[in-house]
Amino acid sequence: MSWDFETDPEYQEKLDWADTFVRNEVEPLDLVWEHQQFVPLDGLRRKAIDPLKEQVRQQGLWATHLGPELGGQGYGQLKLALLNEILGRSSWAPIVFGCQAPDTGNAEIIAHYGTPEQKARYLQPLLDGEMFSSYSMTEPQGGADPAQFRTRAVKDGNDWVINGWKYFSSNARTAAFLIVMVVTDPDVPVHKGTSMFLVPTDTPGVEIVRNVGLYGEPMNDGTHALIHYNNVRVPHEALLGAEGQAFAAAQTRLGGGRIHHAMRTIGLAQKAVDMMCERVLSRETAGSRLADKQTVQGYIADSYAQLAQFRLFVLNTAWKIDKYNDYKKVRKDIATAKIVMPTVLHDIAWRAMQVHGALGVTNEMPFFRMIHGAAVMGLADGPTEVHKTTVAKQVLRDYEPTDGMWPTEWIPQKQEAARAKLADYLELEVGNQ
Amino acid sequence: MSWDFETDPEYQEKLDWADTFVRNEVEPLDLVWEHQQFVPLDGLRRKAIDPLKEQVRQQGLWATHLGPELGGQGYGQLKLALLNEILGRSSWAPIVFGCQAPDTGNAEIIAHYGTPEQKARYLQPLLDGEMFSSYSMTEPQGGADPAQFRTRAVKDGNDWVINGWKYFSSNARTAAFLIVMVVTDPDVPVHKGTSMFLVPTDTPGVEIVRNVGLYGEPMNDGTHALIHYNNVRVPHEALLGAEGQAFAAAQTRLGGGRIHHAMRTIGLAQKAVDMMCERVLSRETAGSRLADKQTVQGYIADSYAQLAQFRLFVLNTAWKIDKYNDYKKVRKDIATAKIVMPTVLHDIAWRAMQVHGALGVTNEMPFFRMIHGAAVMGLADGPTEVHKTTVAKQVLRDYEPTDGMWPTEWIPQKQEAARAKLADYLELEVGNQ
Amino acid sequence: MSWDFETDPEYQEKLDWADTFVRNEVEPLDLVWEHQQFVPLDGLRRKAIDPLKEQVRQQGLWATHLGPELGGQGYGQLKLALLNEILGRSSWAPIVFGCQAPDTGNAEIIAHYGTPEQKARYLQPLLDGEMFSSYSMTEPQGGADPAQFRTRAVKDGNDWVINGWKYFSSNARTAAFLIVMVVTDPDVPVHKGTSMFLVPTDTPGVEIVRNVGLYGEPMNDGTHALIHYNNVRVPHEALLGAEGQAFAAAQTRLGGGRIHHAMRTIGLAQKAVDMMCERVLSRETAGSRLADKQTVQGYIADSYAQLAQFRLFVLNTAWKIDKYNDYKKVRKDIATAKIVMPTVLHDIAWRAMQVHGALGVTNEMPFFRMIHGAAVMGLADGPTEVHKTTVAKQVLRDYEPTDGMWPTEWIPQKQEAARAKLADYLELEVGNQ
Amino acid sequence: MSWDFETDPEYQEKLDWADTFVRNEVEPLDLVWEHQQFVPLDGLRRKAIDPLKEQVRQQGLWATHLGPELGGQGYGQLKLALLNEILGRSSWAPIVFGCQAPDTGNAEIIAHYGTPEQKARYLQPLLDGEMFSSYSMTEPQGGADPAQFRTRAVKDGNDWVINGWKYFSSNARTAAFLIVMVVTDPDVPVHKGTSMFLVPTDTPGVEIVRNVGLYGEPMNDGTHALIHYNNVRVPHEALLGAEGQAFAAAQTRLGGGRIHHAMRTIGLAQKAVDMMCERVLSRETAGSRLADKQTVQGYIADSYAQLAQFRLFVLNTAWKIDKYNDYKKVRKDIATAKIVMPTVLHDIAWRAMQVHGALGVTNEMPFFRMIHGAAVMGLADGPTEVHKTTVAKQVLRDYEPTDGMWPTEWIPQKQEAARAKLADYLELEVGNQ
Repeated sequence: MSWDFETDPEYQEKLDWADTFVRNEVEPLDLVWEHQQFVPLDGLRRKAIDPLKEQVRQQGLWATHLGPELGGQGYGQLKLALLNEILGRSSWAPIVFGCQAPDTGNAEIIAHYGTPEQKARYLQPLLDGEMFSSYSMTEPQGGADPAQFRTRAVKDGNDWVINGWKYFSSNARTAAFLIVMVVTDPDVPVHKGTSMFLVPTDTPGVEIVRNVGLYGEPMNDGTHALIHYNNVRVPHEALLGAEGQAFAAAQTRLGGGRIHHAMRTIGLAQKAVDMMCERVLSRETAGSRLADKQTVQGYIADSYAQLAQFRLFVLNTAWKIDKYNDYKKVRKDIATAKIVMPTVLHDIAWRAMQVHGALGVTNEMPFFRMIHGAAVMGLADGPTEVHKTTVAKQVLRDYEPTDGMWPTEWIPQKQEAARAKLADYLELEVGNQ
Repeated sequence: MSWDFETDPEYQEKLDWADTFVRNEVEPLDLVWEHQQFVPLDGLRRKAIDPLKEQVRQQGLWATHLGPELGGQGYGQLKLALLNEILGRSSWAPIVFGCQAPDTGNAEIIAHYGTPEQKARYLQPLLDGEMFSSYSMTEPQGGADPAQFRTRAVKDGNDWVINGWKYFSSNARTAAFLIVMVVTDPDVPVHKGTSMFLVPTDTPGVEIVRNVGLYGEPMNDGTHALIHYNNVRVPHEALLGAEGQAFAAAQTRLGGGRIHHAMRTIGLAQKAVDMMCERVLSRETAGSRLADKQTVQGYIADSYAQLAQFRLFVLNTAWKIDKYNDYKKVRKDIATAKIVMPTVLHDIAWRAMQVHGALGVTNEMPFFRMIHGAAVMGLADGPTEVHKTTVAKQVLRDYEPTDGMWPTEWIPQKQEAARAKLADYLELEVGNQ
Repeated sequence: MSWDFETDPEYQEKLDWADTFVRNEVEPLDLVWEHQQFVPLDGLRRKAIDPLKEQVRQQGLWATHLGPELGGQGYGQLKLALLNEILGRSSWAPIVFGCQAPDTGNAEIIAHYGTPEQKARYLQPLLDGEMFSSYSMTEPQGGADPAQFRTRAVKDGNDWVINGWKYFSSNARTAAFLIVMVVTDPDVPVHKGTSMFLVPTDTPGVEIVRNVGLYGEPMNDGTHALIHYNNVRVPHEALLGAEGQAFAAAQTRLGGGRIHHAMRTIGLAQKAVDMMCERVLSRETAGSRLADKQTVQGYIADSYAQLAQFRLFVLNTAWKIDKYNDYKKVRKDIATAKIVMPTVLHDIAWRAMQVHGALGVTNEMPFFRMIHGAAVMGLADGPTEVHKTTVAKQVLRDYEPTDGMWPTEWIPQKQEAARAKLADYLELEVGNQ
Repeated sequence: MSWDFETDPEYQEKLDWADTFVRNEVEPLDLVWEHQQFVPLDGLRRKAIDPLKEQVRQQGLWATHLGPELGGQGYGQLKLALLNEILGRSSWAPIVFGCQAPDTGNAEIIAHYGTPEQKARYLQPLLDGEMFSSYSMTEPQGGADPAQFRTRAVKDGNDWVINGWKYFSSNARTAAFLIVMVVTDPDVPVHKGTSMFLVPTDTPGVEIVRNVGLYGEPMNDGTHALIHYNNVRVPHEALLGAEGQAFAAAQTRLGGGRIHHAMRTIGLAQKAVDMMCERVLSRETAGSRLADKQTVQGYIADSYAQLAQFRLFVLNTAWKIDKYNDYKKVRKDIATAKIVMPTVLHDIAWRAMQVHGALGVTNEMPFFRMIHGAAVMGLADGPTEVHKTTVAKQVLRDYEPTDGMWPTEWIPQKQEAARAKLADYLELEVGNQ
């Protein structure tokens, strides 16, 4: 046991395979079927993609996030992190490798909390990548603060009747079902009075009011739905997990997910570095290559420094998850990865864009998609500001306030103590002090 | 072989011992004998310090940077890095552990290039910490650029006569000898025409014109000498290494040194984090603890993020040095550590100072010494700007320019290729494109 | 004559009118006819817009950038700056006020350098807003460096035959004609061997190869053309200005234009501040309004500080243009405005986006359009890096190198001089020094 | 009345005189009598300095902050701002011009609130620069938050007896008297229960426990006293202003003072720019002047941009004070100047230091004094964090929350309104939408 920063050769071979496979077979999908990852497969698309999934399965890289009990390999977070770094370069790659959010997290909740009937109906198709799902939590007035949630479910006989609005319910448009967070007991604090329901998307009253798009997508033709739950009636059996236990269950979703997300971001940022480097070697201006300009050299050095440091941090966090298997011990680092991630991608993609000149700001290069992605990362799963508070609170757990008026390191006090301790060696030198 | 972020328990025990020892026995020295680290030991000071050195020796932690052939332990850079992190908290610690710059680097040069007579005279006392030395390279007009060096040595019989000015020759004031870089052949490029000489400080003509102090020290009473070499005559035997080979020899000095420096910086920055955390738990303003202010939480989170990432990066670099034993393979990372280091310390120390209010800017807390130290780090051994160029050049070695007018990742071109590749799966869907 | 930071009441009234008019009558156009500003008016659009232009004319605010000799009001740059601040909020406003780039600059060149025939054919329709034009300079391999330009015109009888590629020729798609920069004498430096031609867009051989879009626009359906000039034959009379004088003429275009651009940016950034402020008063999270969070307060304070400072700087620059009427005296400040502009808009729009949560990153709020606009500003008319060099060179004109080895402000030298000067007052106090 | 950015020629002449006078006559004082500005004049120092003060008086530039009723010129804040920009270059200049803090503010309070006896005893000597004073408010546990103040005065017959600790009481060491903020009624909120006392420094019980120095000064030999008020007995006549009204009176001190401080900072930062420019023209490295390095050009451009913008902002704020004579209307801008000031000085001084290489970090150049000064500015009179909250609150006064769920600028809503408004012009074009 001792410091080591290398991957074992056997798994490294798998990563090398994945790297080549993603570049050659998966990245082209991004260019012909953009925004269609979550449209259920049919016809020619299925013919193109099923064989790719089969190759992934044969390599033992399908749905690697799953534990052995769900048919996964039990690789642990560090190995998953390394794989996700490769997948991050392509928006289709998670689909082809069976590990796309939010379905991964949704499947984990169902696996932990679902009844046998719920599992039978939803789990296997999710795991097989044959069904898509949406996680319907955020509300338009509420952002990241559950205390603002107003969507209610009221019991009516054996049914629950859901009313309210949900915002940014990703993939609702093409999902087979939604996992909805709903206040079932408004008289207790929200963390104890909220429940989860499994609601098929075609249930009467599930009204997608807007298919909100991200910037750069067509208006009202995006994947982040504003949903009006308008007297949506579901049977009691639609309850996922125990009544009032939605927040406890929700924690399950976020554990490793943020690490995967961080590593995908690193893969993407590395792609931006690659593009920046190719560019500055290829272009000349004012008598020398861009690569020879001091400012450009600064862009490259700063980008390398940011990315290399962050990558080691995320891998270290993954290693801690594997080692401790205790969310409390890694919460600080997971939140830290979350706050650093958007800045790293923003800064690197912006510099890469800048060295591409006018071409960089067009839709013919991917830089602004990355920069926009960085902004999304700074908000999704809670804004950076909230996670900074989390980090600070965790860091502060290891410290105590002082007793007196002055800090422990206040020099006059320390000096006095040092003089007392070393008094025997000082007396003849008083004149020098 | 596989990722591991832990120290083996046996060495960890040594680190724990060092941590306690530095805190209890060494840090007090900083408070009673400030700025006296490089004054040769005598009288009571020797009585106080020799037993501490002896304890370090007994732990096998004396002069750990040395290879076994020089009496060191051959620990390798990663273990040294972890030790230096602890030493960084105290300005006396490197002395007590026998690894203070510039004597370490100077000893390494003499060990590699010195004649038996030179070694006999200088090496052992240096290794024993009983003699101090100065590295006299920078010139007042020249900064980091050797092409500006003008100090000349001219042969006169069996002697060399040195004339010129050197700046920032650290510790010259108390050193027994100087290693001086001198142009011996002005007709070839400086990298081939410069030689090193070993010059005893009391040689006639070695005139310390100013004992330049850093900001915060008394005027003309500091340790960074401006030296006029005024017809300094030394015998040919004073030549260290081959004539004209000074720059090749100088490289030896910088290898591991920057990693040690980086880790000491990390130790110091961690101390600033500790002080910041204690403070914000201890003070209340406007109705709540500083620890509860969102801006302060941001300071802590950002500091933790910067420091934890940087620490892993430096340890990874140390590991690479141990693994590859090839300076070319780690040059990029050593230079990266060099450019990141000043920013990390500056930012963290500044935030720690800020939360201490007025007390923070006084000489009764160590924050401005740290901030000033960060500035020194951004200049010593070459300014950050120069090292960024090094990093960029190393990064760019892995890339090629494109052939055509457009980048490899230009979407129209990639899209065309993807459509061709997937043509069989697209034909029936043309209407959707 | 003395410091005054206010607009005279008469012109302020016009500004107030413009402010209300833009908000009520012009901003709605942005929402129904996005990206159609440069499509020649017809049918119902003309019916909607002509009366608006007429109102502007009646207020004396039509094409205010023009001098009286071209039918303008001769307001001067400071007044134009204040007007452009209002126009910056709407992408249709410059059209409705007759001052849209690039037509303004193109008209200025024709007014200065055009023959009577050229003026007759192009100038008045441009001034009337009835004809659109494109400025075709940048080349795909060349970016901001004219030395890279390869588009050539060769004389053939009374004609010139143009061959080459131009990139980012804005509005070429809907323009009636292009002003093309072409190398006519490759044997002299590019600044002396380049000429301008007026080329009707329907000239045979003018091939728009791609209608490049910015990020967020549909592929190949944008307004920044990649043009192949494929044996484009124009008569000698198409030459605009003297042969080889294109760069001298081009300077005319940029004078006031960058100030207008800066003030429009300020108007836009102010809109982002307004949205940020409304939002933080409207939303509550974790028990208090966003407006009460310290980090959010920091966003507002920093945004106000950046914007208010920049606004005064741009107005000061406009005032200097009016006062000196000498491009050389304001070049430094114009370049400074150019480099500051993108950062101000980026930072403010990003913060405004952040406080809007998930909504902020959608296409239902304008923040990413602003952030993207900031990126465009950092590249259009030359990248920020180039303009920083311009600023530095201009600043350095006021300084001289020192003679000796030490700076003028080197304290030991200054102290010696001060002691000499004050010697009479020091002698009795020597003991205190 | 209209925009003007110039000083009237008559006052400009005075400024030009002051500029030369400070450079030639005052700056040398900084080099021979450092840290002695607040030591009462005697002997040769008086002989050197009195004639300088006399010259200032003859120019009508003595104590220009005073209104005519106190013997000042009534110049107004804008003119004072321009003068203070010049004085900022020298630490002795405020003394020579009779406008050194904290005596200026202290004199203003006494002028407003003092009894005839208090004025007779303290005011004129203060105005004459013949007496120094200290403002004793901050407490060691309390920083910027008055609610933490614990120093109490209790009535005892006609006397008050003061007990408690004060921190950072600047110049207490050489001051003739202290203005002390003391809680006289602990049963009401601190803003209503605090009183000011005029306490001669030699009153029994006024114990200066430490003469705290700033970083860079000798230990316990500085000018920021830690004072123990140990049963300090003063007569009721020592009360300055009404009982319980200390905070209302204290406001008087800060009005113009921060503007003067900001302008002095600008003068200092300009000096750093000057030094940076001289240096980069004087030094060559790696084959070209520093002035030709792109990174260095960036330093200059960024410094010019920051400083020029900030200067206009501060002058605009001074102009608003003169115009409105209403603290409430300028509070936002004064606080903004306060928060920007430290960053401007820090950034510029740091860059100037960096281009000076090793020399820059020594005590032989003034850069670190400036950087330390920037840190002090970010804490004195309240930390930056507190003033950002002030700015934000002031900015937000002009805004209202929205009524509904969506922001006013939510595009779907605005688009609907625009379509309704322009319905007549849209119907035939539906196909295009």
